[in-house]
Amino acid sequence: MLEGFFKPNAVAIIGASTKPGKLGYSVLANVIESGFRGNIYPINPGATQIARYKAYDSVLSLPETPDLAVIVIPYNAVPAALRECGEKGIKAVVVISAGFREASVEGAEREQEVIEIAKKYGMRIIGPNCLGIIDTYTPLNATFAAGTPPQGNISFMSQSGALQTAILDWSLASQDLGFSRFVSLGNKADISETDLMLDWADDPQTRVMLAYIEGVPNGPEFMRVAREVSRKKPILVLKSGATESGSRAVSSHTGSLAGAEAAYDAAFYQAGVLRMNSLEELFGNARAFANQPLPNGSRIAIITNAGGPGILATDTLERRGMQLARLQRETVQKLEEFLPDAASAANPVDVLGDARHDRYAQAMELVALDPNVDGLLCIVTPQAMTDIVETANAVGKLSQRTDKPILAAFMGEERAKAGEDVLASYNVPNYMFPEQAARAFAAMRDYIIARDRPEPEFVTYDVDRDAVRKVFDQAYAEGRVSVGEAEARAVAEAYGLHLPKSQLAATADEAVRIAGEIGYPVVLKIASPDILHKTDVGGVKVGLQNANDVRDAFDLIVYRATRYVPDARIWGCLVQQMVPMNGIEVLVGMSKDPQFGPLVTFGLGGILVEALKDVTFRVAPFGRQDAEEMLDEIRAHSLLAGVRGRPPADRAAMIDTLLRINQLVTDFPEVVEMDINPLMVYEAGQGAITLDMRLVLKSK
Amino acid sequence: MLEGFFKPNAVAIIGASTKPGKLGYSVLANVIESGFRGNIYPINPGATQIARYKAYDSVLSLPETPDLAVIVIPYNAVPAALRECGEKGIKAVVVISAGFREASVEGAEREQEVIEIAKKYGMRIIGPNCLGIIDTYTPLNATFAAGTPPQGNISFMSQSGALQTAILDWSLASQDLGFSRFVSLGNKADISETDLMLDWADDPQTRVMLAYIEGVPNGPEFMRVAREVSRKKPILVLKSGATESGSRAVSSHTGSLAGAEAAYDAAFYQAGVLRMNSLEELFGNARAFANQPLPNGSRIAIITNAGGPGILATDTLERRGMQLARLQRETVQKLEEFLPDAASAANPVDVLGDARHDRYAQAMELVALDPNVDGLLCIVTPQAMTDIVETANAVGKLSQRTDKPILAAFMGEERAKAGEDVLASYNVPNYMFPEQAARAFAAMRDYIIARDRPEPEFVTYDVDRDAVRKVFDQAYAEGRVSVGEAEARAVAEAYGLHLPKSQLAATADEAVRIAGEIGYPVVLKIASPDILHKTDVGGVKVGLQNANDVRDAFDLIVYRATRYVPDARIWGCLVQQMVPMNGIEVLVGMSKDPQFGPLVTFGLGGILVEALKDVTFRVAPFGRQDAEEMLDEIRAHSLLAGVRGRPPADRAAMIDTLLRINQLVTDFPEVVEMDINPLMVYEAGQGAITLDMRLVLKSK
Repeated sequence: MLEGFFKPNAVAIIGASTKPGKLGYSVLANVIESGFRGNIYPINPGATQIARYKAYDSVLSLPETPDLAVIVIPYNAVPAALRECGEKGIKAVVVISAGFREASVEGAEREQEVIEIAKKYGMRIIGPNCLGIIDTYTPLNATFAAGTPPQGNISFMSQSGALQTAILDWSLASQDLGFSRFVSLGNKADISETDLMLDWADDPQTRVMLAYIEGVPNGPEFMRVAREVSRKKPILVLKSGATESGSRAVSSHTGSLAGAEAAYDAAFYQAGVLRMNSLEELFGNARAFANQPLPNGSRIAIITNAGGPGILATDTLERRGMQLARLQRETVQKLEEFLPDAASAANPVDVLGDARHDRYAQAMELVALDPNVDGLLCIVTPQAMTDIVETANAVGKLSQRTDKPILAAFMGEERAKAGEDVLASYNVPNYMFPEQAARAFAAMRDYIIARDRPEPEFVTYDVDRDAVRKVFDQAYAEGRVSVGEAEARAVAEAYGLHLPKSQLAATADEAVRIAGEIGYPVVLKIASPDILHKTDVGGVKVGLQNANDVRDAFDLIVYRATRYVPDARIWGCLVQQMVPMNGIEVLVGMSKDPQFGPLVTFGLGGILVEALKDVTFRVAPFGRQDAEEMLDEIRAHSLLAGVRGRPPADRAAMIDTLLRINQLVTDFPEVVEMDINPLMVYEAGQGAITLDMRLVLKSK
Repeated sequence: MLEGFFKPNAVAIIGASTKPGKLGYSVLANVIESGFRGNIYPINPGATQIARYKAYDSVLSLPETPDLAVIVIPYNAVPAALRECGEKGIKAVVVISAGFREASVEGAEREQEVIEIAKKYGMRIIGPNCLGIIDTYTPLNATFAAGTPPQGNISFMSQSGALQTAILDWSLASQDLGFSRFVSLGNKADISETDLMLDWADDPQTRVMLAYIEGVPNGPEFMRVAREVSRKKPILVLKSGATESGSRAVSSHTGSLAGAEAAYDAAFYQAGVLRMNSLEELFGNARAFANQPLPNGSRIAIITNAGGPGILATDTLERRGMQLARLQRETVQKLEEFLPDAASAANPVDVLGDARHDRYAQAMELVALDPNVDGLLCIVTPQAMTDIVETANAVGKLSQRTDKPILAAFMGEERAKAGEDVLASYNVPNYMFPEQAARAFAAMRDYIIARDRPEPEFVTYDVDRDAVRKVFDQAYAEGRVSVGEAEARAVAEAYGLHLPKSQLAATADEAVRIAGEIGYPVVLKIASPDILHKTDVGGVKVGLQNANDVRDAFDLIVYRATRYVPDARIWGCLVQQMVPMNGIEVLVGMSKDPQFGPLVTFGLGGILVEALKDVTFRVAPFGRQDAEEMLDEIRAHSLLAGVRGRPPADRAAMIDTLLRINQLVTDFPEVVEMDINPLMVYEAGQGAITLDMRLVLKSK
């Protein structure tokens, strides 16, 4: 799809320079030194020859149409050069030049111009304001970075070009950090994360794709593409700007609007993207994905010549939801036959400090054959008897004979380095510390779970959209964006939610009459489009037993409301059936995320919501399985399952409510905020009742 | 205190060998090669000379009494050799030999013998089953490890000798990982963590002490010593066996009993010990402590030539409770004067990709002078114009002129390495990734908070110990360890807790009479020493309004109790004042940790305890500040402070209850388990009532 960028027939470098220190010099030098096999055309009106290549004044003068042009000229000359590329029929252009959206208002306008030129000619653009692109297999290095990374199976895209220079510099000194494609995203004027993901999904050299991003311009598109691609290959993303100051730093840096972290977490999860917490984790895990097969399960065997590091690895495995494999009895027996008495034949298998490569080899061989083992972690500390290179060879050879993943932690540096180099030659990633290897196993397992997660089963109920439309129209007609409880009832009913019997009373007399019809006891609630948090203004009275109670409550509530919110429009009070309060109060809510759209929340309700913040999120629309999972993801999930002899709460009713709200907020994008708090959930089979619902519409 | 080990006048190596590959050879070689300046005495009855040293058949034949003996002979010969050391007057012995407690039952007996010999002669022992000890300044390397680590300001003790060989191997290839003392703890038969802490507190070369441990033999002693020492120097501990399988691996490995992790967390916190989560964190943070001054606050300034890494560092700082320094206006103005337009003069200060050392130097200088800045993080990505060595020199020179800590993240390896070496020469730690440097700043800040935490103010109430003693004696006399509610009331009253009015009724008639005296409504609860979880057997009825209700409830409760627990001794029912249920239910509990003793718990009570596990811990006895902190540490702390218009709960009453329980469990070590659940806490000034309390005593 993006072949023109990564496997071009020829490359034009617009702004190629003869002067070392100039970006146009570095780019040309990299294209040449990387060993690019197609024609290379320096474009520079002031030169006739650059390096050993004939220089042209414009792409228009070229004897052929190259697939790719790289632009490294001052920003004000970019639009004209781009137009010439279009005229010439060039379809892929990397704009390295800075001075666009990241720089100024005029820059943003210039970027818009670039986008329009590209559209007009059907060109695709990477950049502007980027480091360039690399494909190590073509090979082509069209960046101004210092050097070309070694070949490997990682493809890396980054919103920070400088970060890429650091990673490249690292890879040059590393034995086992190799790349297939290396792309600086720059301002993402045209080509974004999703274009590269789609392209890399089909690149045979890419086994894992990595992204450093500071924001996602089009959330739903990102989710759709990432979901599709992550079924084929792992996508590891480091998304920065996670904290408040971090977000500030993002907005001053690239002008991209960082979405709420909860939205990113939910969206990444739903899209099968693995979110990484640090650069160390991103590349540490990538090395495992790039070099080893995926494990079939979560049961890891540790073979070590030292107890302590084995325990540390075990701690990390368990913390990350992995397990120590329980070796089969035959395996343990065979291990015991040849291991010294003091060794441990149970997992972690401790081959002891004096183990040489043969003992390691024999132990690993047996463990690898055990059907209870999904992956092997080989830990080696450099002790007096340790023959590091031979042990590394034994690990490497085993990795060629087994289809289970093997990760190594040859600890140390001075002596251990030799082992690392040998391991690299067998594509066995080595980690300085055993915890890092254990974490990589967990990431691999996380990927399998993400990859195999079924497509969401969207549930569509038979609802009354027109009724909702009418309520919203009415609100807009009155210049309101908040939808009061009485109206929200109509919305809830239209979408099949269960509500207590309820009717609006404009006067105390009317309230008494309605209460008589509903049946005592009843609840009275203030009815006003201007009061959203009714309890805060004393606007709710419960347990009213008779007409007198109702009359008193009506007057009191209305009096208080007018005192606290003098300008509020008071419609009267809702008289409501007093439903049993012996259920569990949960919250179902939705807020609009700027990147990903409707973000549905589920959690414990009532006053506990704010105190505990025990909530979980999904981007709507989501499937039935998501709703199921949401119930299990809150910390208090056991409360829903029934504790201390309490019956389990009605799961089906909660899932039903979540899915109906899912549909509502998808059908009506003008809803920017809503919550049901509480949804009173009764025991299994007894359903759930929406006790209080509020909605806020988008300002028109 | 342990001068004999680390600065001995002379060393005897018992088991010194002429044969390469033997441990006795390696130890002697290390002592010689490390440059030890005192006399070296190989002890080996089969040799007259080893290396260029005269060999002796026994320490008894030595011409002088060396301060230190190192034993590397087979385990069965160790006791005799040790006796000779005692006879000779040697006071410090390192027993490297294995084959003791870690190996077998006989080994454990042998270890006991070693301990007794040492006691008899007033000797101190390190080991057995260890790698040996190193002091790089003496210098003395009395281990069988391969090489001596570079000098530095870190002292490291480890329960895993093999782990130490790995760290040593790493240090040999590293520019900025140097050690003062390096001790393998082995089986800790005599000298333990605490002895070394006390010793290192006075070692002028130790600026930070590190420990890898799998368990603490004497919890209270550890806490007392660590609290004292951590006021002088930071103690960083990696405690393994944190997870279930991890714990299993520990017990099979060293036989030490791993305490509950909650107890370790609480004990480390109370003792001012910083708990590390991984080897990478342990040594990454140690490098900062060893080489840089402590920051005066939590406000960090970032100077970077790339936006992305600056954001990643910011994310980590904030996640760990640090802040981005808000630069003074003058600083920003001065930065703006010389920085290019596209640069960012606000923190993170982005000096742009083309920054050379002079621009870095000028920016860092200004930022270091800003009184709003407590520490500097200098991030350098290797871009085309970057002069890495000169920039590293600029960072190093600034570090010599400022008393604020400076950490560096010169990212990459191929080109960045040169910068790292220069930084090391100035004692500026360099981190591969900016997140690691940010984390080190947070650790330094954590240390200051830990160091400066005031001594606990223990609170002692005037209580009635005899009453409690009587209750416990009675229980023991009856062969019981569980203390029923009626008895627990007596205990609670004796320790000044508030209880609802309550009286035991043996019959329904009696219950009715008592209810009349207390006043309706009342609660009835089953009274049986064999039923701890009363609600589970339907043993509680609330809201009883009159004599009929009480009579029915009594019969029903007793019937149910006998049905569910046929063998239970039923004393009747407690008739209890029905206290207002409009408070917040919390839990105050205690369980006995095998390492640290009484571990007091505070958290949300009622059914939420089990569902949310929102609890926090302290090892008793603790001080008033601890009790205060416990209230703030639970996730639901805002619930206690009052949410949504609810009044704040009575803090003083909760603290009072915690401190009285603190005293109770300290006064009566035979209490192995207790809880108050719920403690019903009313609004501020209204107190708290112990609604249900239970106690379990230690089996006699």
